[in-house]
Amino acid sequence: MTKLFVVGTGPGDANLVAPKAIEAIKASSDLVAYGLYLEILGGVCDGKQHHDLPLGEEIGRARLALDLAAAGKTTALISSGDIGIYAMATLVFELLDQQLQGKENSPEWLDVEIEVVPGISAMQAGAARVGAMLGHDFCTVSLSDLLTPWQTIEKRIHSAGTGDFVVSFYNPVSKKRDWQLNTARDILLQYRPATTPVLIGRQLTRPDESIKIITLAELDAKDVDMFTLVSVGNSESRHIVNGSKEWVYTPRGYKKKLI
Amino acid sequence: MTKLFVVGTGPGDANLVAPKAIEAIKASSDLVAYGLYLEILGGVCDGKQHHDLPLGEEIGRARLALDLAAAGKTTALISSGDIGIYAMATLVFELLDQQLQGKENSPEWLDVEIEVVPGISAMQAGAARVGAMLGHDFCTVSLSDLLTPWQTIEKRIHSAGTGDFVVSFYNPVSKKRDWQLNTARDILLQYRPATTPVLIGRQLTRPDESIKIITLAELDAKDVDMFTLVSVGNSESRHIVNGSKEWVYTPRGYKKKLI
Repeated sequence: MTKLFVVGTGPGDANLVAPKAIEAIKASSDLVAYGLYLEILGGVCDGKQHHDLPLGEEIGRARLALDLAAAGKTTALISSGDIGIYAMATLVFELLDQQLQGKENSPEWLDVEIEVVPGISAMQAGAARVGAMLGHDFCTVSLSDLLTPWQTIEKRIHSAGTGDFVVSFYNPVSKKRDWQLNTARDILLQYRPATTPVLIGRQLTRPDESIKIITLAELDAKDVDMFTLVSVGNSESRHIVNGSKEWVYTPRGYKKKLI
Repeated sequence: MTKLFVVGTGPGDANLVAPKAIEAIKASSDLVAYGLYLEILGGVCDGKQHHDLPLGEEIGRARLALDLAAAGKTTALISSGDIGIYAMATLVFELLDQQLQGKENSPEWLDVEIEVVPGISAMQAGAARVGAMLGHDFCTVSLSDLLTPWQTIEKRIHSAGTGDFVVSFYNPVSKKRDWQLNTARDILLQYRPATTPVLIGRQLTRPDESIKIITLAELDAKDVDMFTLVSVGNSESRHIVNGSKEWVYTPRGYKKKLI
């Protein structure tokens, strides 16, 4: 039997990694991961063969993981967050699908047993750090137009607006992309108040974490980098201050029962 | 210092509970939780004071947790999944907000230190069990109209349609609610193919888990109960079959690079 684990290791804090993820890594001889992701895992990765590829080489990484597993090495393909959310899992199945259609030359992939282990995603870590920002219906939108036409992304932001979803923007900016986030802000401002609370969470749950709560009107791409999650509340999200502590929550509507 | 942990324990599998959640429970003398949620946690709950309230008594449960913590007992308010997603966390902050506005009579709540610990939500467990269903932009919609007017919910389903988001329906049916899910299906059918893959995941990651992959046209509320997650793919989600194994994934768009 050949086995590939596809593993998400959570937002950063080693205490937010599921035991099942650790078990999968322990059971593997080979790890395919961007180097930084392994740092938080520490000792459990010792003695494993580590295969690194530069950021951006996603297809190569998924292919390598399938190849290693097909060659009989129990392998873990690892990313931070939830590997099923804007990460490597879907690429493994895209490759498998291509092979099933005869468009790849790796029939041995079809014998690999695949197990996906989910993880806590950045939006969840961010929501928890500021209270309960995802308390009601929400959506996620990736602002990267490398693989998705901007037209599609823009349509989704409008839909997030008409539906009044809490919106978490993944890949909000990169070195080469800086205008999308401000455009997204301007679109959402057509649908919800300028005072809508926004979470700017950088390096969430990591030692150098920084968290800012601002308003939608104040959101500016220049304050955001590729390690940042941006979550925008819905029209009912509340920013409350209790002494030195501040929170954002999105009500489910219990208020009418409370009063 | 008085402390309240607000803790999500994941979809069911004890191996998907974050160590941080276990630590929070260990540090607490009092647990406020619906009884079933504690079963998966096992021994770590032994010797703790367990406060149970019937399902439906959400406000009472949040109030009790704040009261216990304010009285000096380190308390954990617990739910399955991610307690920040359609669960108790937001209610704690709704109560706190009411107190800050002078609409409650519990100023002692304001001295409670609150820490929210996120967990893996059902949609993530479901997506992982069938592959990578949440591989691209997605949203969640609760179909419960107890606290949200149906008009708002319907608008959100239309927005999920126009945005072509993968949609996870939480609270799809209950004993008293059975028509909403079929209406939601009919709305989505206006926007995406009848062959769109749908995941019906019941008791995900638990011993009695059942998973079915059907099409959007086949989705019927009679096959769904309150322990079930329903996730509907977007217009590009693919259902693939490899021998005895079947998968659903939502592509990110690497295909054009693959060919």
